[in-house]
Amino acid sequence: MTMTAPSLAVSGARIKAMVDDWARFSEEPDKLTRVFLSPEHKACAEAVIAAMEAAGMTARIDAIGNVVGRYEGAAAGAKTLITGSHIDTVRDAGAYDGNLGVALPIACIADLNARGKRLPFAIEVIAFGDEEGVRFPTTLSGSRTIAGTVDPAVLDLQDDTGGSLAEALRSFGCDPGSIAKEARSPEDVFAFVELHIEQGPVLEAEGLPVGTVTAINGASRFALTLEGMAGHAGTVPMNLRRDALSGAAEVIGAIERLGKSEAGLVATVGRIEAAPGAVNVIPGRVDFTLDIRAPEDRQREVAIAALEQDLAAIAERRGLRLTVERLYDEGAVACDTALMDALDRAIERQGIRVHRLPSGAGHDAMALASLCPIAMLFLRCGGGISHNPLESITAEDAETGARVFLDFLEHLDPDALRR
Amino acid sequence: MTMTAPSLAVSGARIKAMVDDWARFSEEPDKLTRVFLSPEHKACAEAVIAAMEAAGMTARIDAIGNVVGRYEGAAAGAKTLITGSHIDTVRDAGAYDGNLGVALPIACIADLNARGKRLPFAIEVIAFGDEEGVRFPTTLSGSRTIAGTVDPAVLDLQDDTGGSLAEALRSFGCDPGSIAKEARSPEDVFAFVELHIEQGPVLEAEGLPVGTVTAINGASRFALTLEGMAGHAGTVPMNLRRDALSGAAEVIGAIERLGKSEAGLVATVGRIEAAPGAVNVIPGRVDFTLDIRAPEDRQREVAIAALEQDLAAIAERRGLRLTVERLYDEGAVACDTALMDALDRAIERQGIRVHRLPSGAGHDAMALASLCPIAMLFLRCGGGISHNPLESITAEDAETGARVFLDFLEHLDPDALRR
Repeated sequence: MTMTAPSLAVSGARIKAMVDDWARFSEEPDKLTRVFLSPEHKACAEAVIAAMEAAGMTARIDAIGNVVGRYEGAAAGAKTLITGSHIDTVRDAGAYDGNLGVALPIACIADLNARGKRLPFAIEVIAFGDEEGVRFPTTLSGSRTIAGTVDPAVLDLQDDTGGSLAEALRSFGCDPGSIAKEARSPEDVFAFVELHIEQGPVLEAEGLPVGTVTAINGASRFALTLEGMAGHAGTVPMNLRRDALSGAAEVIGAIERLGKSEAGLVATVGRIEAAPGAVNVIPGRVDFTLDIRAPEDRQREVAIAALEQDLAAIAERRGLRLTVERLYDEGAVACDTALMDALDRAIERQGIRVHRLPSGAGHDAMALASLCPIAMLFLRCGGGISHNPLESITAEDAETGARVFLDFLEHLDPDALRR
Repeated sequence: MTMTAPSLAVSGARIKAMVDDWARFSEEPDKLTRVFLSPEHKACAEAVIAAMEAAGMTARIDAIGNVVGRYEGAAAGAKTLITGSHIDTVRDAGAYDGNLGVALPIACIADLNARGKRLPFAIEVIAFGDEEGVRFPTTLSGSRTIAGTVDPAVLDLQDDTGGSLAEALRSFGCDPGSIAKEARSPEDVFAFVELHIEQGPVLEAEGLPVGTVTAINGASRFALTLEGMAGHAGTVPMNLRRDALSGAAEVIGAIERLGKSEAGLVATVGRIEAAPGAVNVIPGRVDFTLDIRAPEDRQREVAIAALEQDLAAIAERRGLRLTVERLYDEGAVACDTALMDALDRAIERQGIRVHRLPSGAGHDAMALASLCPIAMLFLRCGGGISHNPLESITAEDAETGARVFLDFLEHLDPDALRR
């Protein structure tokens, strides 16, 4: 028995070529922009259906615009593993974000199909349509529809032109009235496993092509303001100043130290504005933001509480008025232990060192977590760059990713996952 | 002999009323804006002439638009002490910046004149026209004309409408061809003493109405840039970041510590901009400014050199690219020791604690320093606020300032100043 034999038939170059081909479906000629339910989305969905059918799958567009491909299991009535990712993009996107997680499983199934191999479970590859949330003020409506958690009110949401999501679905050829019927049953679906580029630099720094995701980090965002007293940069001595920017600098230092204090935690000040903003005037007010993420909600909340104490102390000592507004919270989603172990074993069998890492960005897997156990496999991307035309992967890594994924599928025992 | 008797005749309320009256000469009805050589400047100059003549002085407008009032000494051929300040303003100005230093000496001379008292020197009060540099891209052209250091090229400078300074002078009734003749002789002028609101909070914090200025601080300005690597706030772990804003925060902390490390030194970051500037993106580039001032050039340069080392080390350690562009340098101007002592003695005789402080802002006295020894007397202003309609002084402080200034004048021996 040769464990690695099947993977030899999966070409990384062909996976890359498939994704690169889909990149022509864009609303702009020189850059990739493919928003939910656009004509380019439809054209791409049809190309995905063609690839699925060529791989021996049945394929259809569901009521919310997802492309759903199915490769039946060895026996009728077998349970279902869902994989896939999204094919909508941000504006001026890279080609691999989302799309790779659709193309790579199709290539793996094409290989199974070429070998006439059926697994003890059915596999569905879903190309979700709404992960980036660019067109309508919603996100994950595709994956939430599959999970049965979509809010029907999303149908009334409007894009910039005033058109509703329901109208856009009808133009796409979908029946918005049927979205509730797309919800899957936890009795049928036993796992969702998403493959995605890392969108970060960890695997590159580790020298590894793939890594097992532990959790999709929870995130909180804040708007902070420090108010002191503006003054003449020449005439106010240092000891009589209430300089809001010097205070903000100390706060940013505390935020960075907090982020560095624990593995998994990240904390970022992305925006800052100092007023009045003249070279010779002491800033009287600074507005800035904080984005803080962690693989566990409790870790994030404990960090936020510690930070709030720090910040209040800094403001107090400097005679500054601190305002903290919490803008947004998204809970962390843990990956399933048994699925992570199964991915690790597949990575090991392919001769690669196992590395686990959290996902700092959100993914469709978050929505599927309410339906079934989830897991994610990250693939190394060049420079950690994503959401950018410079996004890149190598054909070698695509091939390694496909080998690992195929190995994972061929060794997976749905019954063994029940604990 | 009653030392304090003369001062009783100088009313602080009348000095304040004089300045408040001049505040009506503005190009805007609800705020004070009086730029160099404007019709409002001319109207104010005429009011100043009237006040000077009422105080027993001769008065004229000179070739560069200064109002020059003269109160002759006891003997013909006596040397001249010049005092005064500017009557041009910033846009939406306070009433007292500059103007107080014209009105207060006029009130003192009115008192001498009422008593029929002549001093062993002539006194000139000059209302300079171009200290704020709002209309033309020049400043101190009035005081530099008196000092004989004005660059004739200023006559060709244009305002926003394309009109030249020479044309504006002619409209004002001046002869631009005669500005060189206004230069004074160091043999005649033995001192320039300027009275000005502090424009800072030091005297208020000290609980003092007046203070003796030690120097007009030198200043240097810099544009700084830190470049790192932008990245996703969720996916890039803290240890793999090159966050330009965290670097700038550390730099701002170092700048503040430097400013606090030595008396007299002040260092300010007034502007900051972080790019790309999104809540969920690690800043890849930060542009910010530094304004650093000190009473002695050597102190300022030593501080700058130390800071440059600090900043380079911070950038190096964080993998950031630091760019430092020096935008501007203005040398410090020291006040004359004998004149400072004479001011201190007058302050003491009025029963006030002596306090010396540097001037963080520039003044006409800087230009006069190339002609003769200079000194400045600062008057407390409310909240340290200036260049703002909220600028304020009390009538009591105006009266105290006038008492001190008159006492200073009446005790001054020009021959004793020669060292």
